[in-house]
Amino acid sequence: MKFSCYKDDLNEAMQLLIKAVAVKPMTPVLAGIYLKAENSALELQANNFSTGIIIRIPASVESSGEVVVNSGKRFQDFVRIMPDETVTFSNEEGGNSLVIKSGGASVELMTMEVSDFPKVKTPETARTFKILKRELGDLIRKTVFAAAKDESRPVFTGALFEVKGDKLSIVATNTHRLAFASKKLPENYTDVSFVVPAEALRGLITNNPSAAENYVTVNCSLRYVTFTFDNVFVNSRLIEGLFPPYDKVIPESTVTHVRVDTAEFKQAIDFVALMSKDDEYNTVKFVFEGDGIAISANASEFGNADRKIAAEIEGERLSISFNADYIADVLRVIDTKQTKIDLNDKFSPATFTEPGNDDFIYVATPVRA
Amino acid sequence: MKFSCYKDDLNEAMQLLIKAVAVKPMTPVLAGIYLKAENSALELQANNFSTGIIIRIPASVESSGEVVVNSGKRFQDFVRIMPDETVTFSNEEGGNSLVIKSGGASVELMTMEVSDFPKVKTPETARTFKILKRELGDLIRKTVFAAAKDESRPVFTGALFEVKGDKLSIVATNTHRLAFASKKLPENYTDVSFVVPAEALRGLITNNPSAAENYVTVNCSLRYVTFTFDNVFVNSRLIEGLFPPYDKVIPESTVTHVRVDTAEFKQAIDFVALMSKDDEYNTVKFVFEGDGIAISANASEFGNADRKIAAEIEGERLSISFNADYIADVLRVIDTKQTKIDLNDKFSPATFTEPGNDDFIYVATPVRA
Repeated sequence: MKFSCYKDDLNEAMQLLIKAVAVKPMTPVLAGIYLKAENSALELQANNFSTGIIIRIPASVESSGEVVVNSGKRFQDFVRIMPDETVTFSNEEGGNSLVIKSGGASVELMTMEVSDFPKVKTPETARTFKILKRELGDLIRKTVFAAAKDESRPVFTGALFEVKGDKLSIVATNTHRLAFASKKLPENYTDVSFVVPAEALRGLITNNPSAAENYVTVNCSLRYVTFTFDNVFVNSRLIEGLFPPYDKVIPESTVTHVRVDTAEFKQAIDFVALMSKDDEYNTVKFVFEGDGIAISANASEFGNADRKIAAEIEGERLSISFNADYIADVLRVIDTKQTKIDLNDKFSPATFTEPGNDDFIYVATPVRA
Repeated sequence: MKFSCYKDDLNEAMQLLIKAVAVKPMTPVLAGIYLKAENSALELQANNFSTGIIIRIPASVESSGEVVVNSGKRFQDFVRIMPDETVTFSNEEGGNSLVIKSGGASVELMTMEVSDFPKVKTPETARTFKILKRELGDLIRKTVFAAAKDESRPVFTGALFEVKGDKLSIVATNTHRLAFASKKLPENYTDVSFVVPAEALRGLITNNPSAAENYVTVNCSLRYVTFTFDNVFVNSRLIEGLFPPYDKVIPESTVTHVRVDTAEFKQAIDFVALMSKDDEYNTVKFVFEGDGIAISANASEFGNADRKIAAEIEGERLSISFNADYIADVLRVIDTKQTKIDLNDKFSPATFTEPGNDDFIYVATPVRA
């Protein structure tokens, strides 16, 4: 086998592929990557059994072949700092290593039995829908951060995908806060819903503006979902278990309606959170009064921090406390100049939304302070 | 007490001052900082008994006073993100807090008894010499990195200062590698030598080009050394114990003389070190042959990496192995386009120097590979 390709193409491919390389592999081969050179293309595969990824990049193939490099991490490390813009790969038939050359640099990486590598499965025909890459990326960015980090209840470490007619909604929650976002699909599809591990979704759609207007094909079977776009194919197992009826968490009506400058709000939270950061619940208090919000935190041993910001407030004035992280997190994904906050009372969940956009809702449950 | 000052002045002062704020204080007051407002100046002090620092910055003082804030870290955190460019401080006489305001932000930080704070001692009259701030900064940068990180032999966690006539040398070693640098002083001084904790020296001279041509006054007594420059006074305890005769470590003569491009050499080491990084001794092999160096590393389970670079070589060709970090470290402080390497044989220390500069020598002991 002998082929060469561009370092930049390899680097971009490895950035996504490394997500499916096992860090603590059940069997050594799962820490490796599979390479196949054939017909002017290099195919790279990684598979940790939770996520499997296939990426194809252009290659100049002198003689075709396939190989499994035993450490995907080392492969990535070396490719990243190759001195030249093209990289050449070769191995000897029946050998147990792959030689990688670029400029004056040369690396020989150990290889494993190709037959031991669990090839990534291509989709069974099942429920399929399409969505613009840019729009799927947006939905993921605005929701997946809200999923649970701890594994105690697996379903909350995932994001619910829900197709209803011509609409895709994604929902993620850790039970204390919930993010919901939806987009119109290009056509009507049969209703389907499934839960994808948040980990598989993070970084799935990279910021490649030139390809943002391409479509992603999403294909969902009983146990797997696959995403196909550009030169990439990602296969992820689904999380079993029942996602709770999220619409019950979203308040039907609210009595206090607030609009605040998003950037100023974020700055104020970051400031006050410096005082709450060692607190178990990271508690920050909001007092909605007159035409502003007084945001404060108190750490008995250190002191207290206060920040007042202007706000348009309609309805009942009230005070309420939140985990500072839950507010800072949503302010990172709100894209509008202003943020809308709607509340009932100090014990009830509040919503954080973008004025004029009904397709995004974030709900935060208050801390009882 | 009430005064105000510029946020930027405070931030710059805190960057140095925080080095002397205790992280795990023996008594709580050592995690705090002392502030005194008087005569158009704010004096800040921190003291962890190993290092004590005093910094003065301009202030507009409405009523003078002194206070000890109980967390230097929180003070720094809050000052850093104050919304306005000026910051106002006030406290009530007999109160136990300091109120800090800037723009719409307000912080109240708990304070402690001023009498409990161990004020930083100003120097006893002792041996004194002066050196340009820029030159002391250079000496520190080119040597202190070579000191030991582990505390098993305290003297090696420090840097030896040695004044002989009109010359200051600084030397640091962890016994496997040694860095030596010296500069001419503006006049002759009585000989003196002492060992300063590397920790106190790191970041001591910040990159403030406008003040680089100012002098630093170094004052050394039996147990302490003090550095006075600009608006800063730093007092550090000395390390007791005998620094070994470092000149015995520097080879008197060498048989192989090499010159190599510094940037290319650094790139090659970084590349090959990706393969050696999990090795206990981080071993990288150098083969000096013909008109180049073949640099390589080998990790039995992963493979091997090679990089060839051009070099001018005079004398015996040889092969020798080093800890990759020890070479990468020195290449970060070599300021010349080329690096000079002088060697005897694979078992003897080699020197790394700057062509045309006799005031810097780095010695690395080979790994027996």
